[in-house]
Amino acid sequence: MNIHVRKIYEALFALEDLRELYRHALPTGLDEHEEEQFLNGIAHVESIIRELKEGKGTPIQDVSAGLELRTREEEFININPIQPGGRLTPEARKALIAYGDGYSVCDMCLEGRLDKIKKPPVDEFHADLADFVGMDEARVVPGARRGFQAVTSALLENGDIVLVSDLAHYTEFLAVELAGGALKEVPSGPANIITSEAVAATIERVKEENGKLPKLIMLEHFDYSFGNEHEVYGVGKVAQEYGIPFLYNGAYSVGVMPVNGKQIGADFVVGSGHKSMAAVAPSGILATTAEWAPKVFRSSLIAGDLTGRSFGNKEPEMLGCTLMGGTVLSLMASFPTIKERVKNWNEEVEKSNYFIREFVRIEGNNVASEYPRKHTLTKVNTRESFDQIAKTHKRRGYFLSDELKEKGIVGEFAGSTRVWKLNTYGLSWARIKYLSETFIEIAKKYGLAVR
Amino acid sequence: MNIHVRKIYEALFALEDLRELYRHALPTGLDEHEEEQFLNGIAHVESIIRELKEGKGTPIQDVSAGLELRTREEEFININPIQPGGRLTPEARKALIAYGDGYSVCDMCLEGRLDKIKKPPVDEFHADLADFVGMDEARVVPGARRGFQAVTSALLENGDIVLVSDLAHYTEFLAVELAGGALKEVPSGPANIITSEAVAATIERVKEENGKLPKLIMLEHFDYSFGNEHEVYGVGKVAQEYGIPFLYNGAYSVGVMPVNGKQIGADFVVGSGHKSMAAVAPSGILATTAEWAPKVFRSSLIAGDLTGRSFGNKEPEMLGCTLMGGTVLSLMASFPTIKERVKNWNEEVEKSNYFIREFVRIEGNNVASEYPRKHTLTKVNTRESFDQIAKTHKRRGYFLSDELKEKGIVGEFAGSTRVWKLNTYGLSWARIKYLSETFIEIAKKYGLAVR
Repeated sequence: MNIHVRKIYEALFALEDLRELYRHALPTGLDEHEEEQFLNGIAHVESIIRELKEGKGTPIQDVSAGLELRTREEEFININPIQPGGRLTPEARKALIAYGDGYSVCDMCLEGRLDKIKKPPVDEFHADLADFVGMDEARVVPGARRGFQAVTSALLENGDIVLVSDLAHYTEFLAVELAGGALKEVPSGPANIITSEAVAATIERVKEENGKLPKLIMLEHFDYSFGNEHEVYGVGKVAQEYGIPFLYNGAYSVGVMPVNGKQIGADFVVGSGHKSMAAVAPSGILATTAEWAPKVFRSSLIAGDLTGRSFGNKEPEMLGCTLMGGTVLSLMASFPTIKERVKNWNEEVEKSNYFIREFVRIEGNNVASEYPRKHTLTKVNTRESFDQIAKTHKRRGYFLSDELKEKGIVGEFAGSTRVWKLNTYGLSWARIKYLSETFIEIAKKYGLAVR
Repeated sequence: MNIHVRKIYEALFALEDLRELYRHALPTGLDEHEEEQFLNGIAHVESIIRELKEGKGTPIQDVSAGLELRTREEEFININPIQPGGRLTPEARKALIAYGDGYSVCDMCLEGRLDKIKKPPVDEFHADLADFVGMDEARVVPGARRGFQAVTSALLENGDIVLVSDLAHYTEFLAVELAGGALKEVPSGPANIITSEAVAATIERVKEENGKLPKLIMLEHFDYSFGNEHEVYGVGKVAQEYGIPFLYNGAYSVGVMPVNGKQIGADFVVGSGHKSMAAVAPSGILATTAEWAPKVFRSSLIAGDLTGRSFGNKEPEMLGCTLMGGTVLSLMASFPTIKERVKNWNEEVEKSNYFIREFVRIEGNNVASEYPRKHTLTKVNTRESFDQIAKTHKRRGYFLSDELKEKGIVGEFAGSTRVWKLNTYGLSWARIKYLSETFIEIAKKYGLAVR
């Protein structure tokens, strides 16, 4: 437990209590009783800051009754496979402090449309977003999955076939299921990589077996399981040759590396705010071309039979407005950092490879993902190393979690010593080196050979 | 501009910068350079606290470049019609500070299901939620609209008819449109109230005209337009008599007043987190009975044709997990307060009526909603009072906004002096009285008669 971290939290919370005073006071100022509370509150903050400075005092444990403090980003190095890209920037955390309240973004909503709000500049952000992924139009959605859903709902009729990878994320499955579609998987083969040839062959197979072409191809640039890079550029070409719309799933790419949907040949680009864009969950983006926008972002046509009321200003696939508060504000506040950080993707991959090179110096440690790594998410296989120790250790697989935690590392799937995943995204070189050294130290401690 | 409020924000932001240090440091502690940054950061916080205490210094304007600070809850009384129920509790704001990061709730996810996470206690929260609205099962969803969508998607076939109010919110329209359903409106009549008789009559009309019964009845307890109370208990009975499932739209009730779905005779209860449960947008709940849960919360059945992969643990209508971070944590953190505050609904209504009584003392001011008020959301008509002033004022309708803002009141639709809405939810008696007096003062200033 880091007393400084805990005292920072305590001070933040004490300031929130102070802020609350003003949420009940009259605009004319504090009354006598409130003034007293204010002074007491200040004194409390001052004493916490003093303890923070001196590294003294009792460390707080909870946010409030029953809700433990979350400190894994401050007190630990977090190698969780899905979390690092969604870690908030300081700008997003500040935006959240200011704009956390429910409908906070709607103060100056004049047209009843989230993407047309000028203050805060949500409209500008939408234009920038489309540009950022090289597409014509973009909307924010409550998670990448809601982007898939909008597309399958708009494009599929009952029984239509969708091509997905045999490594597809479950949310693609559900989006197809909901729309009444059927799935055909493209085999990733022994290399666990979806090639454009495999996609073309699967299209041909579907044509032959079902007498019709697939209505949609969905493919992730990097899959959730291996973090392998799939041939999205080639698949974009194949999709265009067959005239089949192509949804590029950028849950693990948009926000961490440069992505240009049109260069890829994508008709839809989906990204995840909480996975790769340093934003609050659930958030994400759906971008498309001028050709497809009128279909997926079409206006509502339904009307009341008595009143004739209709809502042509609203988009049914979005269900109108999507992210009306802290979620969209966190996306917006992180966006300047996101635009910069994608330029450093090569270095992120370099750090990932550095770590893996060190990691496989431990005899029996293997990489299940493609190698060299092209992503920061990696699946490793430690059956012949750590799992051998686990077999006889009284804590079983948890010995590894214990050792890592002791060294300030968390985020691996606790107890898992066979095949598991980790993600080094966003770790500084110093942290990468520390992480590498720690694994080697643990290996040595348990008598595993290190090359 | 309130210097204290601005300094509180500045201190919160400075602490976030300090916290960020620890997000990059090694678990072994700060290095020399970081230590220096830490001390500078502390000194910065101390100087802000000093200014805060003395009410001195430059007030900050922005969260970050291009994003203005939001202070309408601290520097003003906010009477916005849709915002007050979604204003975060201090507990929610603290939870958000700790759990804002993307997938923050997934640290200890063992079963791949949001509603089964034990730490933080999301599983317990789900059980409590169902209980809170008097139903058997509940899920969190990204906004009430996503609850409507799940129900229409699960229940409707193409062309099926759904009964809605002629005052229904647009999101109900869109949810029916997306599912391929058709709408029939129940007339609210001259009183702008949906009666059980009108619902029964509309069912009969549909039966006659279409030869089939509606597949679903959706009705809001309080509508968004007038904030009038509709006969949900009676409609629950009618729905049961006809055997038609009934979706109770509690966007303006769940979280501010006691709601018991089974007592109402509802098959589905939908609530909004950002509208009435003091939570970050988009958030909400969908609760149902043991009878309907297997339909709406059914397991995924789709499978990959090559791999046979299937996800029986996931619910397609939810698209798997729904609110994986700050959104669900804000709901959870506010929940103890929510459970308490619904008990004070009568007093909230009393305050609403107090304000309206004062408001209509101004000659020409009228209430468009039912009166006495049964809700805190009210539509008022000031055509014969403030709008008469607006006609000749150089600022037109904005004169009223200007006057209110001058007195620290915001949230009315700026420029609107004819028919507009306001919501007094959560205002203390002192604020209610101040609000009432302010309107009367403005009226007097412009020579309107006050009874």
